[in-house]
Amino acid sequence: MGVVVQGAERTDTDVVTGLGGFGVATVHEAQGRRGLLDSRLRPIYRPVRIAGTALTCEVPPGDNWMLHVAVEQARPGDILVVAPTSPCGDGYFGELLATSLRAHGVLGLVIDAGVRDIAALTAMGFPVWSSGVSARGTVKQTIGNVATPIVCGGSLVRPGDVVLADDDGVVVVDRTEAKAVLEAAHQREAKEAGVRARLAAGELGLDVYGMREALAAKGLRYVDAEPA
Amino acid sequence: MGVVVQGAERTDTDVVTGLGGFGVATVHEAQGRRGLLDSRLRPIYRPVRIAGTALTCEVPPGDNWMLHVAVEQARPGDILVVAPTSPCGDGYFGELLATSLRAHGVLGLVIDAGVRDIAALTAMGFPVWSSGVSARGTVKQTIGNVATPIVCGGSLVRPGDVVLADDDGVVVVDRTEAKAVLEAAHQREAKEAGVRARLAAGELGLDVYGMREALAAKGLRYVDAEPA
Amino acid sequence: MGVVVQGAERTDTDVVTGLGGFGVATVHEAQGRRGLLDSRLRPIYRPVRIAGTALTCEVPPGDNWMLHVAVEQARPGDILVVAPTSPCGDGYFGELLATSLRAHGVLGLVIDAGVRDIAALTAMGFPVWSSGVSARGTVKQTIGNVATPIVCGGSLVRPGDVVLADDDGVVVVDRTEAKAVLEAAHQREAKEAGVRARLAAGELGLDVYGMREALAAKGLRYVDAEPA
Amino acid sequence: MGVVVQGAERTDTDVVTGLGGFGVATVHEAQGRRGLLDSRLRPIYRPVRIAGTALTCEVPPGDNWMLHVAVEQARPGDILVVAPTSPCGDGYFGELLATSLRAHGVLGLVIDAGVRDIAALTAMGFPVWSSGVSARGTVKQTIGNVATPIVCGGSLVRPGDVVLADDDGVVVVDRTEAKAVLEAAHQREAKEAGVRARLAAGELGLDVYGMREALAAKGLRYVDAEPA
Amino acid sequence: MGVVVQGAERTDTDVVTGLGGFGVATVHEAQGRRGLLDSRLRPIYRPVRIAGTALTCEVPPGDNWMLHVAVEQARPGDILVVAPTSPCGDGYFGELLATSLRAHGVLGLVIDAGVRDIAALTAMGFPVWSSGVSARGTVKQTIGNVATPIVCGGSLVRPGDVVLADDDGVVVVDRTEAKAVLEAAHQREAKEAGVRARLAAGELGLDVYGMREALAAKGLRYVDAEPA
Amino acid sequence: MGVVVQGAERTDTDVVTGLGGFGVATVHEAQGRRGLLDSRLRPIYRPVRIAGTALTCEVPPGDNWMLHVAVEQARPGDILVVAPTSPCGDGYFGELLATSLRAHGVLGLVIDAGVRDIAALTAMGFPVWSSGVSARGTVKQTIGNVATPIVCGGSLVRPGDVVLADDDGVVVVDRTEAKAVLEAAHQREAKEAGVRARLAAGELGLDVYGMREALAAKGLRYVDAEPA
Repeated sequence: MGVVVQGAERTDTDVVTGLGGFGVATVHEAQGRRGLLDSRLRPIYRPVRIAGTALTCEVPPGDNWMLHVAVEQARPGDILVVAPTSPCGDGYFGELLATSLRAHGVLGLVIDAGVRDIAALTAMGFPVWSSGVSARGTVKQTIGNVATPIVCGGSLVRPGDVVLADDDGVVVVDRTEAKAVLEAAHQREAKEAGVRARLAAGELGLDVYGMREALAAKGLRYVDAEPA
Repeated sequence: MGVVVQGAERTDTDVVTGLGGFGVATVHEAQGRRGLLDSRLRPIYRPVRIAGTALTCEVPPGDNWMLHVAVEQARPGDILVVAPTSPCGDGYFGELLATSLRAHGVLGLVIDAGVRDIAALTAMGFPVWSSGVSARGTVKQTIGNVATPIVCGGSLVRPGDVVLADDDGVVVVDRTEAKAVLEAAHQREAKEAGVRARLAAGELGLDVYGMREALAAKGLRYVDAEPA
Repeated sequence: MGVVVQGAERTDTDVVTGLGGFGVATVHEAQGRRGLLDSRLRPIYRPVRIAGTALTCEVPPGDNWMLHVAVEQARPGDILVVAPTSPCGDGYFGELLATSLRAHGVLGLVIDAGVRDIAALTAMGFPVWSSGVSARGTVKQTIGNVATPIVCGGSLVRPGDVVLADDDGVVVVDRTEAKAVLEAAHQREAKEAGVRARLAAGELGLDVYGMREALAAKGLRYVDAEPA
Repeated sequence: MGVVVQGAERTDTDVVTGLGGFGVATVHEAQGRRGLLDSRLRPIYRPVRIAGTALTCEVPPGDNWMLHVAVEQARPGDILVVAPTSPCGDGYFGELLATSLRAHGVLGLVIDAGVRDIAALTAMGFPVWSSGVSARGTVKQTIGNVATPIVCGGSLVRPGDVVLADDDGVVVVDRTEAKAVLEAAHQREAKEAGVRARLAAGELGLDVYGMREALAAKGLRYVDAEPA
Repeated sequence: MGVVVQGAERTDTDVVTGLGGFGVATVHEAQGRRGLLDSRLRPIYRPVRIAGTALTCEVPPGDNWMLHVAVEQARPGDILVVAPTSPCGDGYFGELLATSLRAHGVLGLVIDAGVRDIAALTAMGFPVWSSGVSARGTVKQTIGNVATPIVCGGSLVRPGDVVLADDDGVVVVDRTEAKAVLEAAHQREAKEAGVRARLAAGELGLDVYGMREALAAKGLRYVDAEPA
Repeated sequence: MGVVVQGAERTDTDVVTGLGGFGVATVHEAQGRRGLLDSRLRPIYRPVRIAGTALTCEVPPGDNWMLHVAVEQARPGDILVVAPTSPCGDGYFGELLATSLRAHGVLGLVIDAGVRDIAALTAMGFPVWSSGVSARGTVKQTIGNVATPIVCGGSLVRPGDVVLADDDGVVVVDRTEAKAVLEAAHQREAKEAGVRARLAAGELGLDVYGMREALAAKGLRYVDAEPA
């Protein structure tokens, strides 16, 4: 504990922007169902969607000192991603830190812990995904890490990775794979558009996807309801 | 596992419509405090209220294949009710399936599992009660059941039963008892209307309901606060 | 069990009003990080903020009889604070009781249990902080206490204490300390105002709070990222 | 609420005894993966295994009055199966009720709620599966049902069904299917015995079950680790 | 925060010893169903029972510094009762602190947080009730309180109160009421002894407690099962 | 998904053996409080301690097919470490797989999911740390990964890392750091031995660790209790 890594490379802006055109669910599928953060991380207001590059921060339980250290490492387009070293629901983050992050171009916060001042955060339109809300503040006594690889919400997040967050949750895309994932997301969405139109017209998924044979092979049986 | 029951009888439309005029709490009381689904099932947006007939579906954990099978069995006015065979928070359901269900007249979804695309579902006004939100999709490998009796959220739901869902949660009414429950709900509401007016005027529930004697019989004592 | 304490002294109105000008997080800090109720108590709608004096009520699991007893003890400006004697998520409270409380000047409800009729409560603007929503009603068979000291959400609440509740949660302030806490809150907010302006202008918390030396003393190290 | 059904038929003793020769996991598989109670129901001591016939009981939260009513309906070989109408962890059951049940030949208790006196219950060897332990007792104010179909731990249990419980949990077998399930359990165990010997000798499940082709068809790839 | 209260009065030893002759469930009932700590506090080994006087300690999340401060305030016969200021499962306590407490005559630990070294604690027979087990240690950076009134597991505990803990959980008895509660426990147990004998002989609780009339008055109906 | 990495390097046996001489808590501290798996992973029997090298496996929810694939990659001294791609409590593992793993020299199982046959596993002395017990079996329909880096219980585990598990939980040590951690553990234990003797003799931690000055500097105040 106690390291700040300076100058980590970020994913290219146009790739981040491209991924920001898709939803979290689509990108999660497009990269082979990896990188999703635990569903306990929820947005404090809806609807909302942001895409940016990860500025990671690892903090002790009940201690938010390192968030101030992290601000100095921020670049415009970053999203601050925070994980406590053990589960803690305290309110690590509020209006003052949001004001500071915004002044440095940070787009939002993803934290596997609690936040507070959510009325003010909502009013100023600063997006936050957290695992809880708590007015209980934290102390500034113990150091942690900034811009090191961390596990947040059960997924590995490295500095500079793409973070995409919307009403459904948060997904992280490895910096070195981001371009390929963007391509896969485009293809997936193109395919879905055609399916959506057919389903909206009343066609059955059973036929659109051609599932009937496989279901029968698994032994699916159709029976008639007994008369009442 | 692996059965689709076709042609199950539904509760009469006018009874369903009648029950739809009441809230979940009222109907739950009217039928003797039975049939409520676990309170972990919450609506993805509020306010909302629907009433329909149950189209049941039992699915494996992390596998939504049977939802496509269920669509074919849907009738206008149905509500799809889905239970996984073991607890699972994955996102079984999203915009495409909602589009398909709507094309077949299904009014909404009740699922003791996760859903995704909630921004889109909210925008299209497709009501969902779920036990969670997750962008994590599911596979299509293992079969389950459609239109069989299931336990969803701890309550037994049979095909064709009435499902009533609002901001407070979800209640199911046995098809064979629905008419009687409708009658009881009318009576309950009539009685409440009179009580509401008296309470709003400042009368005490202690007097409106005549509780003072029973409380005294239980030994309730009134004492004065000690002076500060 | 089974006591109603009459005529408990309330905190002075102007102190309550003063505290109502601050958020829960600020007041919690101002009184030395005490008195916060567990974060499972959440408002049923947002944004919302109220401040009032505690009217306490202790109830058995699944039994709301004492809420009617409590109404008679209410004074304008009170907030009803309810704790079950064992964890219970049932819907103890709904539109009728809210109507009754409002008729007696009660400002809102804080309950470490479930509530129902939340669509109606939201429509009438009656604020509620609860640990859940459930349409399941309760019985009226067993007595409890009104206006005695209780533990609600893990904090001790005495009749007449100040209760402050907003989007972040609920905090209680001891009646005998309320004036001093109000003063401390004023001082805290004055200090924060200056900080907010500096942070908004892009100054770092590291400098505003003068943290660099203490961080270095703890051993915080800065290293450069390895080239990609 | 408020019904006691007398004289419900029980599954034949020899079928119950036969099923008692198998573990819960085996019987659960043998009946097509149905009938398992939620895994929150755990035995208060281990190892333990019992098989008997269900005597069902539905109770209000925090109220154990109906357990005394249930004792009168017990027959030797029964297992008392108790579900509260809403989640409750209170200690519904202790040494006195166990003494009473044992005097009437009841083999054990399955309850989706709390129990107490577990030191005494363990000492007297009275097996209990519960969702919690709590010294908090209950009241005797509100009635419920005995020997009606109930949902316990998310599964439907009817009076007279077979209940099998061991270190792994609790499974219920429909009375009308019990004989067929017993047969299937025998077949399953016979097959497993052969597999166990081969696996113990070091053969791979991949070969014993012949999985390699199916895995390859799904696209499983084998790669070599990069040298360190 | 930051106060150590020295020389708090303890409950008389003979009263503590007397209460130690009863189980937690009995004492909880004997004092009117008050004072039970939340059931998430479980013993690390069973069977176990201790009775002593409360030495309270309030600690920050993830920080066990104050436990060392508490040891100095310990007297033989004390039980250390620890509550974090916000929920935390870290391992605050292990073999070294147990060694230190034992050297000062402390009988055991009650903590609404995690502990570690449970193999060693079990081997040395040092009883602990905790809300979890975690190898994750804590820091020593932030102060708290010793021997002040605290809320632990949802109940108020004052220094010198009686703490009784066994397999069922933990109950606290107010120092000023302990003698009366001891008397009530004796009476309760005497009554139970007679009931136990009658139940063991096969008499029904319905008759021993004379419940039949009250049940009928509530509307309990007996019906016969339909023939299979 | 769908990769099996063959021939991953393991940590040297003597380093693993050395680490196995320490408890999980000690090793966790010795490596700077990193690498601990979530405390929801608990041993199925106690006391128990094993040390080995990680054989990782990532599985879909409710599908244990890949466990059979993993067995073929096992080497004597391995511990199988399994993580589902989304939370799942099903019983992925039982007696047959344990028999197979033991035949290949695998020392035990760490799984962030459920297991079954725990009576048999306990009887055969096959150690398991799991997040639950469930008799509910799984299917074999969907592939996953073997011997890739995974996140298990919130910590990153790479093939060949050291896994140490005991009554307190599970810690993983990076293969490239294992030797240094072993050295640090030796030093830590040496220091603790001296402290233990002094604490056992009644010396206070306040003095042994020299804490009094730092506590005073934080503002800790000692006051006398008010006379009763």
